Amino acid sequence: MEIAILLFDGTTHLDSVGPYEVLHNLPDTDVKFVAKAKGAYRDRCGMLSLNADFSLDEVTAPDILVVPGGGGADAAAEDRELTDWVAAVHATTTWTTSVCTGALILGGAGILDGIKATTHWRALDTLRTFGAEPVTERVVREGKVITAAGVSSGIDMALTLAAEVAGDDIAKAIQLGIEYDPEPPFDAGDHTKAPEDRIALWRAGINKIKR
Amino acid sequence: MEIAILLFDGTTHLDSVGPYEVLHNLPDTDVKFVAKAKGAYRDRCGMLSLNADFSLDEVTAPDILVVPGGGGADAAAEDRELTDWVAAVHATTTWTTSVCTGALILGGAGILDGIKATTHWRALDTLRTFGAEPVTERVVREGKVITAAGVSSGIDMALTLAAEVAGDDIAKAIQLGIEYDPEPPFDAGDHTKAPEDRIALWRAGINKIKR
Repeated sequence: MEIAILLFDGTTHLDSVGPYEVLHNLPDTDVKFVAKAKGAYRDRCGMLSLNADFSLDEVTAPDILVVPGGGGADAAAEDRELTDWVAAVHATTTWTTSVCTGALILGGAGILDGIKATTHWRALDTLRTFGAEPVTERVVREGKVITAAGVSSGIDMALTLAAEVAGDDIAKAIQLGIEYDPEPPFDAGDHTKAPEDRIALWRAGINKIKR
Repeated sequence: MEIAILLFDGTTHLDSVGPYEVLHNLPDTDVKFVAKAKGAYRDRCGMLSLNADFSLDEVTAPDILVVPGGGGADAAAEDRELTDWVAAVHATTTWTTSVCTGALILGGAGILDGIKATTHWRALDTLRTFGAEPVTERVVREGKVITAAGVSSGIDMALTLAAEVAGDDIAKAIQLGIEYDPEPPFDAGDHTKAPEDRIALWRAGINKIKR
């Protein structure tokens, strides 16, 4: 089985590395990080880069596509070279998936028109511009298209997908392997329950606060 | 504030990228991926590489150290160049942390002698060889040393650390930003509750199964 994970400038890397750590363990599976050109792709803040080992023209028929999001996803959703590739490989995938604002890129490729989808809470309304119906759920499945909510939700999405692809026993063994038994110190990850000042703090950019 | 995240050959990348996505959002913070030499570091299966932008001699006094684990951690724990650097920077850190079998590297640096610590379940007993007392908890804090359990636990560890460093309000805003409201599809991440055959399946290496 071949799995393609798309990279672009301004990717949030947990969006891809979370699913990767689940999916690369599936039986007899190759995961290929793919981008317009081979090389390093930095996130929006510039402090971490991952490498794409493959260019778009080298990966034409993955069984599974994973599209991460991030600050660069809005621009990527309007980049025809990227969205044409996504649309082309989607024609023959078994599963097409997104994490976070990667959903905007699926939208830009015309994949979400008329279906339910989710994304990071900051972009839920934007999904409508692609004809999608935004849904506030962590993992949304519509036929072969699976969209996940923000950043960390990719782990939940990938375990759900692993069970579909290889069965519950293998998905559970992978969950054991990555010791995914979460104990968040706070109950603060759900935007529908977050106070306005916390949402405003995140939107303002915490890293820019000078101490 | 300066945060150093160590890379080496055979790192499990979610061990570092999970904490990274939390910690790089802290106010006025630089995160530096550091390794023996600058460049790309692949995980054990070889399908993903992250880049170290800094060499060990360029990062000598981080406020926070994060040491990830992975298949290469056992060898890294015996690599004097790495463990000498870890021991040296630990002398002046505010917090020294590990995720997964990164604890073995802290052990090799002499940091766990006589204290409680945790790691990935596959290596809990190995902690004793470094004088540590293995503890089956997700996040273990002993003074300024924080060790976390396997792979995904680094997210929980980093949010705990973020609250210590910058307060609960900022930690909660970061948790909201990465939408960490986990919904694992199975209750299968706790090794103390896992059946023997599932543990054996993981140990055998699921990816090697031919379909």
